[in-house]
Amino acid sequence: MVGLGPGGEETLTPQARDAISGADVVIGYSTYIKLAKPYLTNQTVLSSGMKKETDRARVAVEEALAGKRVAVISSGDPGVYGMASPILEIAPPELEVDVIPGVTAATATAAVLGAPLTHDFAVISLSDLLTPWETILRRLDAAAAADFVIVLYNPRSHGRDQHLEVARNVVLKHRAKETPLGLVKDCCRAGEAKQVTTLGDMNIEDVDMTTTVIIGNSQTKVLNGRMITPRGYVI
Amino acid sequence: MVGLGPGGEETLTPQARDAISGADVVIGYSTYIKLAKPYLTNQTVLSSGMKKETDRARVAVEEALAGKRVAVISSGDPGVYGMASPILEIAPPELEVDVIPGVTAATATAAVLGAPLTHDFAVISLSDLLTPWETILRRLDAAAAADFVIVLYNPRSHGRDQHLEVARNVVLKHRAKETPLGLVKDCCRAGEAKQVTTLGDMNIEDVDMTTTVIIGNSQTKVLNGRMITPRGYVI
Repeated sequence: MVGLGPGGEETLTPQARDAISGADVVIGYSTYIKLAKPYLTNQTVLSSGMKKETDRARVAVEEALAGKRVAVISSGDPGVYGMASPILEIAPPELEVDVIPGVTAATATAAVLGAPLTHDFAVISLSDLLTPWETILRRLDAAAAADFVIVLYNPRSHGRDQHLEVARNVVLKHRAKETPLGLVKDCCRAGEAKQVTTLGDMNIEDVDMTTTVIIGNSQTKVLNGRMITPRGYVI
Repeated sequence: MVGLGPGGEETLTPQARDAISGADVVIGYSTYIKLAKPYLTNQTVLSSGMKKETDRARVAVEEALAGKRVAVISSGDPGVYGMASPILEIAPPELEVDVIPGVTAATATAAVLGAPLTHDFAVISLSDLLTPWETILRRLDAAAAADFVIVLYNPRSHGRDQHLEVARNVVLKHRAKETPLGLVKDCCRAGEAKQVTTLGDMNIEDVDMTTTVIIGNSQTKVLNGRMITPRGYVI
């Protein structure tokens, strides 16, 4: 399992690059295959649509058991809401499997926004395809109450276009509407767009499935357009 | 601010490497300067001891305002408990500052252990140098109650050798002692050592300040020696 990082060649580790270059078979969701184009030479490429994760996992294990070197690619880090768990769940003990980490969306997005993650933070996916919505709401509530900075993955899609509004209202029970909030769409890719706003003012229409959202904690501030959560040093 | 990633050249992004190679001045804690040795040629190197973060931030800003290209280096990602916030807090608006993300210890450690972070997780530092211990305990309690996977940074040092024991007991209020727990010491560096154990069986003597600890959620399991938090696909 290979993490491509957030975007282009600049943020891909040498380890990940070598794993893709040295593979016989490269497997991934079609969007990720496009991101990996620069490293594809004569590998066999097996691309598939979204929501085909278990199929991809099975094919990867079959190909590997047949003796092929297989690279299953994901954007960001393959261990964060990625393919690492479905593959490790079905891989037999004799199969050598390595997880090659990448820069995940949380920290890539944070870097674009400034320094919002320099204190304790919680990472929550708003996708309820595989997780009960009640569990997600419970985690949002707990993270907001305990003053974690909150990073939202999969904040909005066509099928769940109001989840983000509900999530905002849960956080607003514990945090002021003036709390800084940052959005980065297409982080580290062509068309990257960032916005530093507030929890109250965020326009959910600005958010889509390629956006990562970071909600500050009670100490987060905005300075020169950058979102900063102080570590606590006396400056 | 440049993130070195967890260890060697294999996990350093090209962007980070170029920022160090192209700098006039490289500033960092002495341990990080050692990690950056392979990329140091004729840059001026300013290294300092731990707990000198505000000094390093001031020197970095002064050098940059004097027209130098400055790289302030941190291991992992500079935005996660790193130098990004103290520098952005004092940098004047006219100064160009970029945060260059890196693979952070949470995901590098997860990759070594298997796939423990494929569901919602909370990142908490057990260092109370800059954060009230009560705040840390409150966050641990909230994260454990809401069934987050929990990643502990700075789990133990000479000055606070019992914090981890207290933290374990807080989590045990909400989670079974059989909950899988993974430790990686010196992740991605020479002498890397991993251990997959349980919340109840962890020996705190095995943990030091170069260790990252990951506590599974209620669904985390161990399979073929690997720690896996299922994403929820029907396998």
